[in-house]
Amino acid sequence: MRFSKAFVPTLKEAPKDAVTPSHVLLLRAGFARMVGAGLYEMLPLGLRVQNNISNIVREEMDATGAQEFRMPALLPADYFKESGRWESFGPTLFRMKDRKDGDYHLGPTHEEIITDLARREISSHKQLPLNLYQIQTKFRDEPRPRAGLLRCREFLMKDAYSFDVSEDAARESYATMRAAYQRIFERLGLDYRIVRADSGAMGGSTSAEFQVLAQTGEDRIVACTQCDFAINLEADETLSEGKPCPECKTPLEQYLGIEGGHIFILGTHYSEKMGAHFAGTDGKQQPLVMGCYGIGISRLVAAAIEQQHDDQGMCWPPSIAPYQVVLCPIGKDETVTAKAEELYTQLREHNIEVLLDDRDTRPGAKFKDADLIGIPHRIVIGAKSLANNQVEYKPRTASEATLVSTSDAVTAVLK
Amino acid sequence: MRFSKAFVPTLKEAPKDAVTPSHVLLLRAGFARMVGAGLYEMLPLGLRVQNNISNIVREEMDATGAQEFRMPALLPADYFKESGRWESFGPTLFRMKDRKDGDYHLGPTHEEIITDLARREISSHKQLPLNLYQIQTKFRDEPRPRAGLLRCREFLMKDAYSFDVSEDAARESYATMRAAYQRIFERLGLDYRIVRADSGAMGGSTSAEFQVLAQTGEDRIVACTQCDFAINLEADETLSEGKPCPECKTPLEQYLGIEGGHIFILGTHYSEKMGAHFAGTDGKQQPLVMGCYGIGISRLVAAAIEQQHDDQGMCWPPSIAPYQVVLCPIGKDETVTAKAEELYTQLREHNIEVLLDDRDTRPGAKFKDADLIGIPHRIVIGAKSLANNQVEYKPRTASEATLVSTSDAVTAVLK
Repeated sequence: MRFSKAFVPTLKEAPKDAVTPSHVLLLRAGFARMVGAGLYEMLPLGLRVQNNISNIVREEMDATGAQEFRMPALLPADYFKESGRWESFGPTLFRMKDRKDGDYHLGPTHEEIITDLARREISSHKQLPLNLYQIQTKFRDEPRPRAGLLRCREFLMKDAYSFDVSEDAARESYATMRAAYQRIFERLGLDYRIVRADSGAMGGSTSAEFQVLAQTGEDRIVACTQCDFAINLEADETLSEGKPCPECKTPLEQYLGIEGGHIFILGTHYSEKMGAHFAGTDGKQQPLVMGCYGIGISRLVAAAIEQQHDDQGMCWPPSIAPYQVVLCPIGKDETVTAKAEELYTQLREHNIEVLLDDRDTRPGAKFKDADLIGIPHRIVIGAKSLANNQVEYKPRTASEATLVSTSDAVTAVLK
Repeated sequence: MRFSKAFVPTLKEAPKDAVTPSHVLLLRAGFARMVGAGLYEMLPLGLRVQNNISNIVREEMDATGAQEFRMPALLPADYFKESGRWESFGPTLFRMKDRKDGDYHLGPTHEEIITDLARREISSHKQLPLNLYQIQTKFRDEPRPRAGLLRCREFLMKDAYSFDVSEDAARESYATMRAAYQRIFERLGLDYRIVRADSGAMGGSTSAEFQVLAQTGEDRIVACTQCDFAINLEADETLSEGKPCPECKTPLEQYLGIEGGHIFILGTHYSEKMGAHFAGTDGKQQPLVMGCYGIGISRLVAAAIEQQHDDQGMCWPPSIAPYQVVLCPIGKDETVTAKAEELYTQLREHNIEVLLDDRDTRPGAKFKDADLIGIPHRIVIGAKSLANNQVEYKPRTASEATLVSTSDAVTAVLK
C-alpha cells in the first residue's frame, strides 16, 4: 500500500474522553473511530489487524476439525424465551419488534440458537463429536461501554460450540480447544496466562480464561512463576479471601489481565432445557453434552495494544501487524525512489505486507507515523547511504537504527 | 474435508414452503437452515460458497485501490434523522431503544454513516479520490421475506462508497467500479447482463444493475444480442410502455434476471445534506461528489444456484464451489483406500479444496450427494479399474463418467 493513497487519518491528540492507551492510540493512529457509545468504525488499518487475528483463529480452529458456519445476529425471541434468558439477560439484550409486532433481539451469544440447530439436525451418536464455530458480530447493551474496543456494545467474537456423547468425550473436546487456544495466543504474539476460572460441577477443571497480561487489565491474576497454576482473583472468591491454594505454593506473582478468551464445558444445561437429544449406541435417547469456547476478536485488537506499546505508539507483533514493513524513502533523488519501488515489489513478491511511505513530507513526520502505527520493521532509504548500497534498518522496538546492506535489510524482514 | 466428519445435513425433501429452486436446494443439500422468517443459518458448505464470493469481491475491490473498512451494524438514529431517512425508510428499518431510551436502528445501507466519517476526516482535495468498502451484514424488515437467501431480512452485502472532487472525477470512479464489477461477475462464473437502470440527473449513464440471468428472476430484461445494450423493464417505464429505444434496434431478446449488484453516482445529495465539504485547489469549500456500489453477496449464493442447477442438484462454477473435487472410493479394498488418500493429499498440495467421501455408504448414495452438492469434479476410485491404474472421472455437468488414468484425472481437475 502506498501511504499517499491510504486512508489513515492520524490525530495529534486523541479526544479527552479517551484515557486507556489502546483507546488513545486506536484513535490517534487512525485505526478506529467512534460512531456512538460503544460503537466503532474499524478503519482500514484497524480492520487489517482484526482480519489477521481472525485468520489465525480460523486456521487453528480448522486444524482441530471444527467447522465454520454462521448464525444470524438478529434473532426471534422464542429461543431465549425457551431457555429463560429472555428474562435473565435483562437490559443487556438489545430488543426490538419487527413490523408484525414480533419480539426479536440481537445475539449477545448463541447457545440457544445452536442448541436448536443441534436438536433439529443431530439424532445419532454417529454424528458426534461435532464442533461448529462462527466469527460474528455480537451485541450487548453494556451499562458502561468504555475504553474503546475493550468494552463495546457491538464487537467481533469467535464462538465455538462442541457436542459430545458423554462428559468424558466433552472433556476431550475441551482439551482439544484448550490446546488450540494455546497455539492461537502464541501465534498472536501475546504474553498470556491460562487462568482457572471455576472448578465446575462435573469435577476437574472445566473452565478457563485466557488472560492477556497488561498493566491496564481489570482482572487480578495470581500465577505461579514455576508452573502453570494461575487464578483470577475477581472470579475466585476463595482465593481472594486469602485461603491457601493446595496445588501450588510460592513463588506466586500478581499480574493484571484482560480476558481474551474463555472456554468451558456447558454440560447438558441447554440440551436438557431445549430437548436436544441423540440416540446413543444402545439406542436410548440422551441429552447432548456441550462445551463453548469464545475469543473476543475485536477486544484482542485493543488488548494487544495495551500490552505492547510505548510512548511513541503501538508495537504490533508481526503476525497481526497491519503491515510488516514500512519503507521510507527520503528526499526526491531518483535512485532513492527507484530503490524504494524495487524493495516494495521485492518484499510483496515474498507475501510481505508493505507500506511504502511515498508522501511528500519531512522524514521526521514519516518516522513518527511509522512508530505510532507500530509497524514491526522500518527501512529508510536515503541518497547518501544508498551510494554505499546501504539502508537504515530499525525494528520498531529498537531504540536506534543501523546501517545495513539492502540485502541484509530484506533478510531481516523475511526472518 | 472428510465427508464422514463434515456437517452436511442433507434432506430427502425440502419443507413445502420452499418453492424456488435455490431455496429448495440450499435446504436439501445442507447449505442453509431457517431460524426465523428471512433469517438463515449458513451451514459450513453454504458459508464456504459465501466466503469464496466475498474473497473474489475483495480481491477485485482491492485491485482498484479501494480500501476495506467496517462500520457498525447497530447505529444511533441521529444520522438517519439528519438525512430524513429515519422517517422515509418506514417499517423496513429495524428500530430499537437502548437502555437509556436512545433511538437506534440496524443498518440497511450506510450512506449517512460514511458521509459522517467523510465530513469528519476529509478536508482537502489532496485526500481524494477515495473509495472505502465493507463486507457486512445488513438488516431490512422486508414486508415479504421469501425464496430463501434471495430476499432475507439479514443478509451479507459488499457496499463501497467513492468520494471525488468533481462530477467528472466521480464518473471516472464509477467507470473503475463498473470494470471491477465486470471482472467480479466474470470470475464468479455467472451469465449476467449490465442493465442501464436510470439515465440520472447528471447526464450520461450514472446507474447500472448487474443482473444474473435466471429463469426464476423477477426482473424482466431486454438486451441486444449484438451489443451491450440492456434495460430493466421493471425500472424503466419508458420502455415498458413500448417506446422505441434509440441506441439499439433489433435483434433484442428478453431475459429474466436477479439483481446481483448495483452501482450508481450519488452526486452531492448526502454531502450537501450533511455538510461534507472539502477545500478544492482554489481553497474554496465544496461538497464531496459521491458514488455507491453494492453487491448482494449472500443473494449471489442463491442466484448462482438459480442459474446453474439441474434435476439432480446444484452445479457450482469452480471459482465459488464449496469444494472443487469430490473423491469417491468404492468398497473397502485397501488399494482403493490408499489411492483415495493419495489423491486427497496430492490435490490438497495443489491448493485444491477436496471432499473425500469416506462414508461407509453405497456408491449410489455418494453419487447422489455429490450431484446434489454440485461439486464440479467427481473422481470415483474402484478396485477393478484401479487394477488398470484408472479411475472414473465426471465433471458435474457431464452426463456420463469416463475411465481415465489417475494422472489424467488429476490434470483435468487442476485445469
